[in-house]
Amino acid sequence: MLKVNLEHLIDKVDFKDYEDKVKLINEGINNKSFPGNDYLGWLNYPNNYDKKELNLIKQKARYVRENFEVLVVCGIGGSYLGALAAINALRGLYTDDKLEIIFLGQTFSGSYIAQVLDYLKHKRFAINVISKSGTTTETSISFRLLKKLLETKIGKTNASKAIFATTDKEKGALKQEANKQGYTTFTLPSDIGGRYSVLTAVGLFPIACAGIDVDEMLEGAEEAMKEFDNEDINTNACYQYAVTRDYMYRHKKCVEMFVTYEPQYREIAEWWKQLFGESEGKDGKGLLPASVTFSTDLHSLGQFIQDGSKILFETLLFIKNPMKDVTIPHDEENLDGLNYIENKSLSYVNEKAYLGTLEAHEKDGKVNNVVLELDKLDSHNLGYLFYFFMKACAMSAYLLEVNPFNQPGVEIYKKNMFHLLGKKGY
Amino acid sequence: MLKVNLEHLIDKVDFKDYEDKVKLINEGINNKSFPGNDYLGWLNYPNNYDKKELNLIKQKARYVRENFEVLVVCGIGGSYLGALAAINALRGLYTDDKLEIIFLGQTFSGSYIAQVLDYLKHKRFAINVISKSGTTTETSISFRLLKKLLETKIGKTNASKAIFATTDKEKGALKQEANKQGYTTFTLPSDIGGRYSVLTAVGLFPIACAGIDVDEMLEGAEEAMKEFDNEDINTNACYQYAVTRDYMYRHKKCVEMFVTYEPQYREIAEWWKQLFGESEGKDGKGLLPASVTFSTDLHSLGQFIQDGSKILFETLLFIKNPMKDVTIPHDEENLDGLNYIENKSLSYVNEKAYLGTLEAHEKDGKVNNVVLELDKLDSHNLGYLFYFFMKACAMSAYLLEVNPFNQPGVEIYKKNMFHLLGKKGY
Repeated sequence: MLKVNLEHLIDKVDFKDYEDKVKLINEGINNKSFPGNDYLGWLNYPNNYDKKELNLIKQKARYVRENFEVLVVCGIGGSYLGALAAINALRGLYTDDKLEIIFLGQTFSGSYIAQVLDYLKHKRFAINVISKSGTTTETSISFRLLKKLLETKIGKTNASKAIFATTDKEKGALKQEANKQGYTTFTLPSDIGGRYSVLTAVGLFPIACAGIDVDEMLEGAEEAMKEFDNEDINTNACYQYAVTRDYMYRHKKCVEMFVTYEPQYREIAEWWKQLFGESEGKDGKGLLPASVTFSTDLHSLGQFIQDGSKILFETLLFIKNPMKDVTIPHDEENLDGLNYIENKSLSYVNEKAYLGTLEAHEKDGKVNNVVLELDKLDSHNLGYLFYFFMKACAMSAYLLEVNPFNQPGVEIYKKNMFHLLGKKGY
Repeated sequence: MLKVNLEHLIDKVDFKDYEDKVKLINEGINNKSFPGNDYLGWLNYPNNYDKKELNLIKQKARYVRENFEVLVVCGIGGSYLGALAAINALRGLYTDDKLEIIFLGQTFSGSYIAQVLDYLKHKRFAINVISKSGTTTETSISFRLLKKLLETKIGKTNASKAIFATTDKEKGALKQEANKQGYTTFTLPSDIGGRYSVLTAVGLFPIACAGIDVDEMLEGAEEAMKEFDNEDINTNACYQYAVTRDYMYRHKKCVEMFVTYEPQYREIAEWWKQLFGESEGKDGKGLLPASVTFSTDLHSLGQFIQDGSKILFETLLFIKNPMKDVTIPHDEENLDGLNYIENKSLSYVNEKAYLGTLEAHEKDGKVNNVVLELDKLDSHNLGYLFYFFMKACAMSAYLLEVNPFNQPGVEIYKKNMFHLLGKKGY
């Protein structure tokens, strides 16, 4: 369904050089014999998830949609990026959906938190707090503040019906609190890391609250799961993408620039950045993931990509049919000179911008382009796309000889911060 | 006022090596004897701008604030990034200001444009269209659609009082149309390029509409103008930043990562990316500008920065006193374990996150850090900061031996696109 178009690569990858390596790694993933094997729960998740829990997710999402004006999603990193990406991509940026969704718990910014709390004072809001342990500092501070506000507004009993906790199945501070207060809880599976969790309750509950069909999303992921369960680099598009990244990295590219042509896909790039940056950026290795939105940023980083340092390649997600479209009207006076494209749709113009830019970057700029083509981006295809990137990331990280599922570097700032804050034991 | 703290650099720059070069370039800038000398209008702008026009800007901004619910800013690249950066930074992301500001004209996305047009159907809105020529394709398509909607809603005569055009003083399609329809016009000076235009009417009119004090912003810029009119690298902080960038570039760094600790500063980074990326990314040269917001993205690109490829250095904007603050409340049960920081402010915690991260990246990660320290970010200081970056960018580009004020690479995609769209002459 997704086409990985490698025709716009200037430096051609020879798949033969990768055949054996890819087979070996594919086997290691399936056998769970490689480093990080405790975190492969996402691999078969699209057909072995807990059906009962999915029903609860959908039922509670309907409850939230019927009873509240705002859902506040309280999480950081993998506990908000997937939901934000999906909600923006599938609803757009100026949605007429009745449920507003606000993200908190991802910052220590007093300015941001104070503004959100002020805004919520006069709204009927529910909370989805997402944390494996319940002690993630950014998230637990915001949750403490949100809970106080909600309890003050509607009382402790009502508040407990408006709080939904996504956390460990059995242990941890948040699970303990949820049990005590009677919050509905969803499970963050212990064998799935944060950046691989978008298709679990972590992502699915807020996505379902946004009115998006999560069954379709899981079906899309299942389609990808079946399609990419294939050791052959010559036919597996997911592994072709992984191998191309590896080839670029080994041939002096140090940045992968993720390009989309829709403002509402900007946060897909943010989700993708965490996935690849956190999976691969270790042991002094890895491509830096960066992103732009075109044609917007052709008037910003476009000059650099066209004509600056030759350090990057582009991975371009182009969706042929947008969610909505507009036709350019006729204008009698035509002072702006646009009548040559009157009655054309914006999607027509956007596609020409994409084709013109691709040619400019490839032919004139000598920039390698990997093109990911999809006919449309609905919830099915987005589920498929999420899975595509997750599996490609596992392959890519193993090709780089790093563990795709740990993040040792994230702990160091926390240790220093806890020491400075005077936390016991630091 | 701004402190450029170079103590967290691992690779130390010797200013002596740059003394003569910096003097020479400083002279070239002042004498207008270097390439791009037609575009130095920004240099003395903070004390030679048109006072009459500034009064008109403020007067019309008051009119917009009093008579409309929404201002739609219609521009691309330098014609929206500065205003967006300033408005988000100074009002925050969930403002209680009564005038909503929406950006359009920066995309061909039918989804985005259709959603915005739908949203505007039931709003009293004004338009600020910004384009030197009036034929920038993204901007003129959106403006054609916006104008039609507005004229349909309130009639042609009323619409002409709700449209404000920022354009060339004399010529071009937009100026012609504005004259014909009787729009209020503001001037986009012919000797100031888009990415250097935030302190002209391009930025100031939308910023003033947002209720921000533009006099203070210009005063801040004037302070910077005076402070950085100094050829001595040993005392000129602006040139120290430029020289440090150059040193990093020449010592195997290829990416500059711009870091802030407030979500509302995210678009300052976008403005900065255009400024440096478009000024320097030419002739196969230049640092790639990238950005993150911490602590948020410590749970995303943090791992890469800490422990991945050693290709980047960080430029960190840290503002000591945020716009708003919140205190962490006591919780009797303390299941989240946060009582050790009860009664502390978020700004206190955010500062410890900043200090802990700085140490982690510098000491453990061996990442060079340039720290830009400001006491607070009000409109005065933001005007100062804008000027600081613009002058640093001119110096930096000349050190790289490229013209800071052209963007030849932006034309290529346009030519290809016009050809594909069947525009005459392409």
